[in-house]
Amino acid sequence: MTNPAGSKTNTGNFFEDFTIGQTIIHATPRTVSSGDQALYTALYGARFAVQSATSFARSIGYPQSPVDDMLVFHIVFGKTVADISLNAVANLGYADCRFLKPVYPGDTLSTVSQVIGLKQNSNGKTGVVYVRSTGSNQKGQTVLEYTRWVMVKKRNTDSPACKTHLPDLPESVDANELGDACPIIESDVFNTTLSGSPHRFDDYRIGEKIDHVDGMTVEESDHMLATRLYQNTAKVHFNQHAQGQSPLGRRLIYGGHVISLARALSFNGLGNAFHVAAINGGRHIAPLFAGDTVYAWSQITDKKTIAGRTDIGALRITTIVTKDHACNDFADSKHNAAILELDYWVIMPK
Amino acid sequence: MTNPAGSKTNTGNFFEDFTIGQTIIHATPRTVSSGDQALYTALYGARFAVQSATSFARSIGYPQSPVDDMLVFHIVFGKTVADISLNAVANLGYADCRFLKPVYPGDTLSTVSQVIGLKQNSNGKTGVVYVRSTGSNQKGQTVLEYTRWVMVKKRNTDSPACKTHLPDLPESVDANELGDACPIIESDVFNTTLSGSPHRFDDYRIGEKIDHVDGMTVEESDHMLATRLYQNTAKVHFNQHAQGQSPLGRRLIYGGHVISLARALSFNGLGNAFHVAAINGGRHIAPLFAGDTVYAWSQITDKKTIAGRTDIGALRITTIVTKDHACNDFADSKHNAAILELDYWVIMPK
Amino acid sequence: MTNPAGSKTNTGNFFEDFTIGQTIIHATPRTVSSGDQALYTALYGARFAVQSATSFARSIGYPQSPVDDMLVFHIVFGKTVADISLNAVANLGYADCRFLKPVYPGDTLSTVSQVIGLKQNSNGKTGVVYVRSTGSNQKGQTVLEYTRWVMVKKRNTDSPACKTHLPDLPESVDANELGDACPIIESDVFNTTLSGSPHRFDDYRIGEKIDHVDGMTVEESDHMLATRLYQNTAKVHFNQHAQGQSPLGRRLIYGGHVISLARALSFNGLGNAFHVAAINGGRHIAPLFAGDTVYAWSQITDKKTIAGRTDIGALRITTIVTKDHACNDFADSKHNAAILELDYWVIMPK
Repeated sequence: MTNPAGSKTNTGNFFEDFTIGQTIIHATPRTVSSGDQALYTALYGARFAVQSATSFARSIGYPQSPVDDMLVFHIVFGKTVADISLNAVANLGYADCRFLKPVYPGDTLSTVSQVIGLKQNSNGKTGVVYVRSTGSNQKGQTVLEYTRWVMVKKRNTDSPACKTHLPDLPESVDANELGDACPIIESDVFNTTLSGSPHRFDDYRIGEKIDHVDGMTVEESDHMLATRLYQNTAKVHFNQHAQGQSPLGRRLIYGGHVISLARALSFNGLGNAFHVAAINGGRHIAPLFAGDTVYAWSQITDKKTIAGRTDIGALRITTIVTKDHACNDFADSKHNAAILELDYWVIMPK
Repeated sequence: MTNPAGSKTNTGNFFEDFTIGQTIIHATPRTVSSGDQALYTALYGARFAVQSATSFARSIGYPQSPVDDMLVFHIVFGKTVADISLNAVANLGYADCRFLKPVYPGDTLSTVSQVIGLKQNSNGKTGVVYVRSTGSNQKGQTVLEYTRWVMVKKRNTDSPACKTHLPDLPESVDANELGDACPIIESDVFNTTLSGSPHRFDDYRIGEKIDHVDGMTVEESDHMLATRLYQNTAKVHFNQHAQGQSPLGRRLIYGGHVISLARALSFNGLGNAFHVAAINGGRHIAPLFAGDTVYAWSQITDKKTIAGRTDIGALRITTIVTKDHACNDFADSKHNAAILELDYWVIMPK
Repeated sequence: MTNPAGSKTNTGNFFEDFTIGQTIIHATPRTVSSGDQALYTALYGARFAVQSATSFARSIGYPQSPVDDMLVFHIVFGKTVADISLNAVANLGYADCRFLKPVYPGDTLSTVSQVIGLKQNSNGKTGVVYVRSTGSNQKGQTVLEYTRWVMVKKRNTDSPACKTHLPDLPESVDANELGDACPIIESDVFNTTLSGSPHRFDDYRIGEKIDHVDGMTVEESDHMLATRLYQNTAKVHFNQHAQGQSPLGRRLIYGGHVISLARALSFNGLGNAFHVAAINGGRHIAPLFAGDTVYAWSQITDKKTIAGRTDIGALRITTIVTKDHACNDFADSKHNAAILELDYWVIMPK
C-alpha cells in the first residue's frame, strides 16, 4: 500500500525539463512585514536612513520607509529555487536586474520566470539555463526583474542535446531607465547629517576607489536564518549531514547573503547611496563558509544623470568582496581572497 | 539583613504540589506580532502559502494570514513551563490537542492548565502529572487545548504517595470535531500553483508514505532564539555551564523545535496541508542536539471527510523524525536515528 | 584617478576632535517596530507582562505595550558609536540615565550627544571623553538621556593636552524624578498572577538579596544579531579576522547585551519590576565571550516613594552579573567571575 518514495515531493526540474519561452509561476507568495525588515537589519546591520526611519523617508518624499532593496531581491529570488535551481551545480551569473517599484511592509510579492536561454554543456551532463524572473506586488505591478543563469544537471546524460539559444543580455542597464522605484525626492531636504555621510552625487568621481573598511564574520546560524527568511530551499545551505559527505564538507552560504553583507558594509563610504536601482552583473568567484570574515571595496565606474530627474543621479559601482582579507589594498577579482564581483547602479541625492 | 537565597524566585512545582482538579493560571500573556511570524519563518523556513501571503489567505476566505499553528502551540505551551515542568525529568507525551480558532497578528494569548491526572512512580522519587492546558485569545475564546503528561520530581522522597488518578484520553481526535480553526474556504480558488503542490485531499490514500527528502541542521543559536521567542524557560535548553556538568554534557533542544522543523520539512510532499487541526499524540524518542541534521517522513494513516464541510478534508498523518539519517528508507520509530513520532490531523482542500 | 583609501569613509573621532560643549547629531534615525520587539524577545527571553501583552499593558493604563526599556537604550546608544567610540579603548561607565517617555512601535528614535567632559590621560596616548546623549522621538520629546564616558585614542600622541574638564555627575538619580516614562497605573488591577510574581513594592526590603538562579549561554550569532539590530558598529563585536590577530583573539560581546541578559534573568525574583526608570551607574568589570554562561543576582539597596505617585514605588537595585558561575553565593563585584555591576532604579506597583 505504499507508493515509491518521492512521488509527491518536488524533485525540481532537470536540464531537459526546460524549454525556450516556458513560463514558470513560482509557489508561495509572501507578504513582507516590518518583522522581515527587522530581521534583515539584525542580519546585516544596514544603516541607510531611508530604510531605517519613517520620518526620514517621508521628509524626502516616500510615503513611508521602503523595505531594503536586497530583501526584496532575496524574497523574489527565493521563490525560484524550487523550480529553477534545485538541481543546479552552480549559479553562474546575474544580469539586467532592475528595481521598478518600492516595496512597503504589507506588500505581497510573487515571482514568475520565463526561460530565455538554453545551452547544453559539451560534457553532456549539464546545461546552462537562462531565466528572466519577474517579482510582482499584490497589485500586479512589477517591482523587480532580473536575468540569471545557472548550470543545471541533466536527468539523463543520454538524452539528446537541446538546440542552443542564448539570450541577448545588455552589458548594463541604461542609466535613463533607472529610478522608477524611487519617487521624486526633495534632495535639498535630504539631511546628510542624519544620513551619516556628507557626500552627494557630485562628490564622487569616476575611477574613485573606496575601501569599506569594516569586516563582518558570518556564522552558520546567521546565514541559515537569512536564507530561510527568504524561503530559499537550496539544500546546500542547510544540510550539514549531506554536505559533510560532499567534497566541500561544509554548508555553502547563499550567494545573496554575501551581496547583502557587502551592501551593508558599503554604507561606510557610500552612505547616501540609499537605493540600489539596478544590478548590471554579478559573479560569485568563490564560496563563503561560516567563520569567514567578509570585507568589501568599491570603485565608481560611471556616473550619470537620469533623464527627467534633477533630484538624483546614478553611480555605477563595482564592488569586490573578499574573505579574511582587508580591502585597503583594493585587491581585484583575481585575488585569491575575492569571493564576489558585483556591478550595480545606486541612486544618490544631488 | 539578607533573606535566604531564592525566597522571591520561582522554584517551580514539585510532584506533591499538584492536586487533581487544580487550576493553574500561567503568567505572561503574549501579543503575537508579525515580527514573531517573521522570526518563525526565519527559524524553520516554512512555505505554506496561507500563512505566508495575505493575498492567498484572503483569496480562500481568511480575513488575513493566520500565524503558524505551531507558533501558537509553542507560545501557549511556553507559559506552562514555569508552573508545570520546571522540575520535570522528562516530557512524556501529548494527546487530544485541538486547534479551535485561528490566531492573527495582534491577538493576545494566555494559558490556563488543569491537573487531570496524577500517578506516583514506583521508585517514590517522581510522579507523572497530566495537565489539560487551554490557550485563549484576548476575547476569551479558546484557540488551542491539549493534554500533556510529564514526569516531575518529588520535593521529598519520603512524602506519601498520592492516590493514582489517570485521565481518560482519546486515542485520537474525532475527525468530525476538526476544522473549527479553519473558516469555510473556497477550495475551487485554492491555487495549487501558488501553494506549491498539485495534490489535494483526494490525491492522498491511506497507507501512502512520503519522504520529505530535505534535511535541516540545527545550531545552538537557532534553538535558543526559538525557545526564548516562546518565552519557554526550561533550563536545560539555555545553560551550557550547568548542562556541561550533567551526564549529557550538552544543551537539550526543546522538543517543540523538532516538531516545527518536521512541519516545515513536510511541505515537500504535503504542500497543501495548510492547517494542523489536531495532534493525536506525540512522543519524543531521543534528544536532539546542536549540530544534528533533522529529516522526516510521513505516512497517511487515515483520511476523513468532516461533517458539514465540503471544502476540506482531514488527513491523519504519522510523521517520523530522525537525526543524521535520510528518510528514504522510511525508518520506523524503533530505528536508532528516530527522535520523534507525531500523530496528527491536517486539513487539505478538496 | 584614485583617491587615498578612506577619504569617504568614517574613521571616527579621536580624542583631539572633541571639545567641551560640542554638539554631535548622530546618524540613522530608527523607527522601532514590533519586529524589533519580537527579535528582542527572542534574543533575551524577557517575560515582563507589560511589554509582552497589549491587554496587560492596557489594563493598567498604558495605551499599548511599550517596547522594552533596554531595547530603547541600545538603539539610542548604537547611534553614538560611529561618532564617539569608534576609536575607543574602553567603555568606562554610565551615569544619570533617565527613561523619560515610553516608546511604542512606530516611534522613530534619534540621538544627539553633547561633550560634557574631557581629560587627557597621563600617558599622553588616550583621553577620557564624557558625553551626555539624548534620545528623542519623532515629536522631539526626549525619551532617554544618559551620560557615558569612554577612553578614546589620540590621533597624534604629540598633540598638546586639552584642559581637563570633569562633569558633575550625580551619585544617583533622585527618586522623585523617576517615573516620567510610566503613566499613572491602576495598581489595584495589576494582576500578579498574570505578571508571574506575587511580590509588590511593599514586599521588598532594603538589603534583600535575590539570586536570579537561571543561566544563559551566549553564542556568537546571538550577540552579533543583537548588536546589528541596534545598528551599533563597534568593530570588535563583528570581525573575527581582525580580533583573531588581537591579544584577546576573540570577538568581544557588546556590554549592552550583558545588561539585557541580566535584565531578562532578573524576572525570576523581580517579576513585577516592569520598568527600568533610571540607571545610576554601570561598570563592565570583565569582557564576555561567546560560549560563556551569564548568571546574575541583585540586592535591593534602596526603596523610595515617588512624589505625587501612589500607584508605584521605586526600588534601587545593584545587580552583579557573572560568567560561568552560579550566583547562589552572592559573589561580589571583586569576584573573578564578575563581569558587570549595574546600579539602577526599577518601578514596582504598590
